[in-house]
Amino acid sequence: MRLPNTFDKENLAGIGHQLHQFAAELYPICRSITGEGIRRTLRMIGDRIRLQISEVPSGTQVFDWMVPKEWNIKDAYIKDRSGRRVVDFQKCNLHVLNYSVPIHATMPLGEIKPHLFTIPAHPDWIPYRTSYYKEDWGFCLSHNQLVALPDGDYEVCIDSTLADGSLTYGECFLPGQSSDEILISCHACHPSLANDNLSGLTVATELAKLLAECSSDLHYSYRFLFIPGTIGAITWLARNREATSRIRHGLVLTCIGDRAPFHYKKSRRGDADIDRVVAHVLSHLTEEPEFLEFSPYGYDERQYCSPGFNLAVGCLMRSVWGSFPEYHTSADNLDFIEPLRLAESLRVCATTLEVLENNRHYRNLSPFCEPQLGRRGLYRPTGGDSIPNEINARQWVLNLSDGENSLLDIAERSHLPFSVIYEAAVLLRENGLLELVPEPRDREKVPTKVANRNTGPNS
Amino acid sequence: MRLPNTFDKENLAGIGHQLHQFAAELYPICRSITGEGIRRTLRMIGDRIRLQISEVPSGTQVFDWMVPKEWNIKDAYIKDRSGRRVVDFQKCNLHVLNYSVPIHATMPLGEIKPHLFTIPAHPDWIPYRTSYYKEDWGFCLSHNQLVALPDGDYEVCIDSTLADGSLTYGECFLPGQSSDEILISCHACHPSLANDNLSGLTVATELAKLLAECSSDLHYSYRFLFIPGTIGAITWLARNREATSRIRHGLVLTCIGDRAPFHYKKSRRGDADIDRVVAHVLSHLTEEPEFLEFSPYGYDERQYCSPGFNLAVGCLMRSVWGSFPEYHTSADNLDFIEPLRLAESLRVCATTLEVLENNRHYRNLSPFCEPQLGRRGLYRPTGGDSIPNEINARQWVLNLSDGENSLLDIAERSHLPFSVIYEAAVLLRENGLLELVPEPRDREKVPTKVANRNTGPNS
Amino acid sequence: MRLPNTFDKENLAGIGHQLHQFAAELYPICRSITGEGIRRTLRMIGDRIRLQISEVPSGTQVFDWMVPKEWNIKDAYIKDRSGRRVVDFQKCNLHVLNYSVPIHATMPLGEIKPHLFTIPAHPDWIPYRTSYYKEDWGFCLSHNQLVALPDGDYEVCIDSTLADGSLTYGECFLPGQSSDEILISCHACHPSLANDNLSGLTVATELAKLLAECSSDLHYSYRFLFIPGTIGAITWLARNREATSRIRHGLVLTCIGDRAPFHYKKSRRGDADIDRVVAHVLSHLTEEPEFLEFSPYGYDERQYCSPGFNLAVGCLMRSVWGSFPEYHTSADNLDFIEPLRLAESLRVCATTLEVLENNRHYRNLSPFCEPQLGRRGLYRPTGGDSIPNEINARQWVLNLSDGENSLLDIAERSHLPFSVIYEAAVLLRENGLLELVPEPRDREKVPTKVANRNTGPNS
Repeated sequence: MRLPNTFDKENLAGIGHQLHQFAAELYPICRSITGEGIRRTLRMIGDRIRLQISEVPSGTQVFDWMVPKEWNIKDAYIKDRSGRRVVDFQKCNLHVLNYSVPIHATMPLGEIKPHLFTIPAHPDWIPYRTSYYKEDWGFCLSHNQLVALPDGDYEVCIDSTLADGSLTYGECFLPGQSSDEILISCHACHPSLANDNLSGLTVATELAKLLAECSSDLHYSYRFLFIPGTIGAITWLARNREATSRIRHGLVLTCIGDRAPFHYKKSRRGDADIDRVVAHVLSHLTEEPEFLEFSPYGYDERQYCSPGFNLAVGCLMRSVWGSFPEYHTSADNLDFIEPLRLAESLRVCATTLEVLENNRHYRNLSPFCEPQLGRRGLYRPTGGDSIPNEINARQWVLNLSDGENSLLDIAERSHLPFSVIYEAAVLLRENGLLELVPEPRDREKVPTKVANRNTGPNS
Repeated sequence: MRLPNTFDKENLAGIGHQLHQFAAELYPICRSITGEGIRRTLRMIGDRIRLQISEVPSGTQVFDWMVPKEWNIKDAYIKDRSGRRVVDFQKCNLHVLNYSVPIHATMPLGEIKPHLFTIPAHPDWIPYRTSYYKEDWGFCLSHNQLVALPDGDYEVCIDSTLADGSLTYGECFLPGQSSDEILISCHACHPSLANDNLSGLTVATELAKLLAECSSDLHYSYRFLFIPGTIGAITWLARNREATSRIRHGLVLTCIGDRAPFHYKKSRRGDADIDRVVAHVLSHLTEEPEFLEFSPYGYDERQYCSPGFNLAVGCLMRSVWGSFPEYHTSADNLDFIEPLRLAESLRVCATTLEVLENNRHYRNLSPFCEPQLGRRGLYRPTGGDSIPNEINARQWVLNLSDGENSLLDIAERSHLPFSVIYEAAVLLRENGLLELVPEPRDREKVPTKVANRNTGPNS
Repeated sequence: MRLPNTFDKENLAGIGHQLHQFAAELYPICRSITGEGIRRTLRMIGDRIRLQISEVPSGTQVFDWMVPKEWNIKDAYIKDRSGRRVVDFQKCNLHVLNYSVPIHATMPLGEIKPHLFTIPAHPDWIPYRTSYYKEDWGFCLSHNQLVALPDGDYEVCIDSTLADGSLTYGECFLPGQSSDEILISCHACHPSLANDNLSGLTVATELAKLLAECSSDLHYSYRFLFIPGTIGAITWLARNREATSRIRHGLVLTCIGDRAPFHYKKSRRGDADIDRVVAHVLSHLTEEPEFLEFSPYGYDERQYCSPGFNLAVGCLMRSVWGSFPEYHTSADNLDFIEPLRLAESLRVCATTLEVLENNRHYRNLSPFCEPQLGRRGLYRPTGGDSIPNEINARQWVLNLSDGENSLLDIAERSHLPFSVIYEAAVLLRENGLLELVPEPRDREKVPTKVANRNTGPNS
């Protein structure tokens, strides 16, 4: 499989521009883990790719959790005695503690203060705070705003509703030749925050679009999830336990629009194919990538990698959540993410999928000594010339293709890019020197017969 | 299990003072591998903990060795012609070559010299030398003493006896819920040397006392050995081959009173639980610990780790034998060991035992996705606050408790201290989120039935 | 087994002188992959060791290849209009593109130029080029020669023949007690090049001579191959598939005469005994050795390590092919290789074979605690003396000889040289403390019975 896109330099600029523009359209919406914000976001994604929307009623039990009431908001403000909005939800939706219960009252500043959140260290920035599972109300504002407020009475209004409704998520399924699946997951519940996680939403949308364009060539089936964080992943897993047994590889995408080098957090397994493939791709395509061991905090890989599932799902980031000052503040805005960075992230994702798609086992049909490449026009003509990577790759593929080494194994051992190894394998196969062999997992299937793929998610 | 002791700062000072005082009481005794010196030492240990004393007659065959004759000494000196003691056993028992046969004669200095041992590089120090298995006599003295001796005749007297008797060792056994044992071993055969090995004797005694205070809580049974080096360990092993099959973990304690950072020499296995636990404890509790691979020289771990036994026994030290200039000299005195260092060593040993006692396997009873800690009061209330180690530890325990990872595995992978992981496991179990599972070794036992624990020491 | 040779300092100088002298005798011959040059070379090797010469007719199919026509050459030159030889094969056989078809014509310089090869970066050096599998003619000359040629007509003559004949190789087989074989292979097809590969030819010849002198002591059988590169190895393998199943260890020797530190390229297996033994020997005997992972380019290890064979064959070098400027040029001459370097390389090879010969598994017959070395005179007499390596080695051998660790395992773990470990084992066995145990591979053989050693080369 080859994606239609080439990701050369000019191409990257154009793609980046589109991605950033889509992020700009999504940016103003006040999203939360339920409600109209996420619904509208999913509709806009659905304009680009075929998205199936699910609504799960409040109160539905999902494993140890319960789908919460639906939250919606029209307006919110704090007005001083002159009627001026000193804090105004219309200017920035971060101003409201996400999931605030409604309130409309006048009270002295002293009583309001326990409900106000600021960041003294960054006095111009508005923090992003939530209270999903404990009914509360509050405002987030810049520290400068707070200190400028004179004592006295203020009118406090949050025109929100918290009531039975549903949790909404979107799913884009692209069937491939195999029922084995690759999962791409990103959360869609953050209000006006750009890196976390409009960057993931936009890149995932574009990635699904690219794959849909070559869907007849796909080996794997693909499942893209656009879900509210934590509760959304839990809800999807609870309703799709059977499907999880088909997930072979997966990625959570988040914070992939800023300037930082890539950070990849490994799956709980630590040495899954997805971990090795992303390591290979980042090492060959990007500068100074960093690799983090799995930990049980972070994004929705927490749920996919919970011990009952233990799926091979890692998390691709640039900056790591919580480690950059703009995280969960108004400074994580459209300036913080850059078109070219978004495009590079898309390229990393697309290349990762290409490697997964094309990573097969082959067998050298001429395994005793080297086959004579020269008479097939596959070698340099004159002894003494230096040998280009393309020819080295052929020798690596021939030498290691004993049926036990995958093309990824060969790429890793040869330190050559997977694409060069893959091209060599294609060429050698065309020349009758190589045959495809069944994947080790498939080989096992044949004799056992009793293996039931659907008995449990850990299989 | 929790030891009654807390080892906080004030506590450490008090404990250190007691340990050093006990060392000071033991210091003057002239010990050897047999005789009244070690007997008296064991009686003094027996005043503090319940010690069973064994006497093994000279001539008893113990594996490839034979229990030697018993050595005792009343006095020894070299007198000059004026009758002045120029070398005097009463001033320092190191002056006599340990195990010297008796002699009383007058001879010129030239004839005595082959029997004199000094350290020219440290002219004030008296060396410690032995001749257990070759009958000989000799004196150890400072090099300054030697060069000050004028030529001429001297009266040489060693009032010792070397005769059939017995080898003496002490054993403190503390039964726990399991018949599986932890072995703590230290040699008790060195005369006036403080770090090697009064430090080990005093810490082991105090450790046994602490365990005895909470003996009803002990999972493991404990066996403390106070034995003459080499021949004592060989004698005990020869007489207790059956017991060795029950030893799961063990430590040799020596040179743990000086200022040096801790050095831990791994068991012959190299990756035994004791090796991992001590590495964990030293890394979390102490500064710049060093870890040494096993070698077949050193202290009694040589015997416990001989290939026929191959027990999981490591050796805890601060300075390493032979590598510090004071080793086996009169400079290894009561000033060389420090109260606080002894107390810290006791803390390391006690913490090591706590980890071994509490290192169990658990299973997450809510393994599909994270359980909702918040509604159980086990999570932070407001999204956005930073998460303390205690909560991280809960997530680690839940994520890795699939029945295959022990709490130590989880502590290692999370880089959190074992105690924090253990507390999390206790709390989660109390909240019904975790169950204890049988240890892997015990799991195996059930179906096989034929395993005979006593067939051989290697099992 | 102990080689008769001691390789002390004086000895090395003498050996080096002989090796270099033999290289000087072989140097002028114009070798190629077929023809009289290699035949004459093999005859000169055959004067020193018992060599069996094989002739394989042109056109013989060898796996994917075919034995080429035989090439011979009498003379070659480029003459200017005055009749002066401006390029003269008689002065240096590198001047002819090796395997050039015959030509005799007069043509302008412009027409000749596409057939001329130079090295502009090293204008004094003549390159070495070949065209074995594509019929062509050409000359190699220094760049200075080329630029000095005025335009105009030149007489071009290559008095060569390319006709049906045969490919020639030499084989020296030394039977040992076991039918298991060690392979030493070097190519013998390069014309006047010294490091590549007269260094290998001369050292291999001398090594075979040394082994022949102690052939009654040999555990392994030895097979030395002197073959044309690539096609020779392929031809030998094709005609000896049965023999390959007996090859347990092997080395390709090349470029071992220059000043560079040793480079060892591991076998495709990467952790074969030969890889470990050479690593051990180079680390103990030489300065700053470097170890290279296997790659499918290089010398004939490419064929021995092709996936159908996957033999445990590494490649010993000093400078690595292609990485030094003199490689494949006239600067790889007799000054580039040094007598002492050749002798050191012989020592490394000989020591490697000694380790392979003597690397056995033993069992401690007194495995419970240490045996008492003192009463056997195998320990230091007085407690307190420092312990020399010889005694440490005895303790390592006793401690690790549980039947599972080979002497090489013990040497690696103890960081002592193999020879010291081996001497300790011999001494301990003489003292009844150790017994030899069957090799793991032989142990497996006994119960299975069905294993057929000759079924395939991979076994």
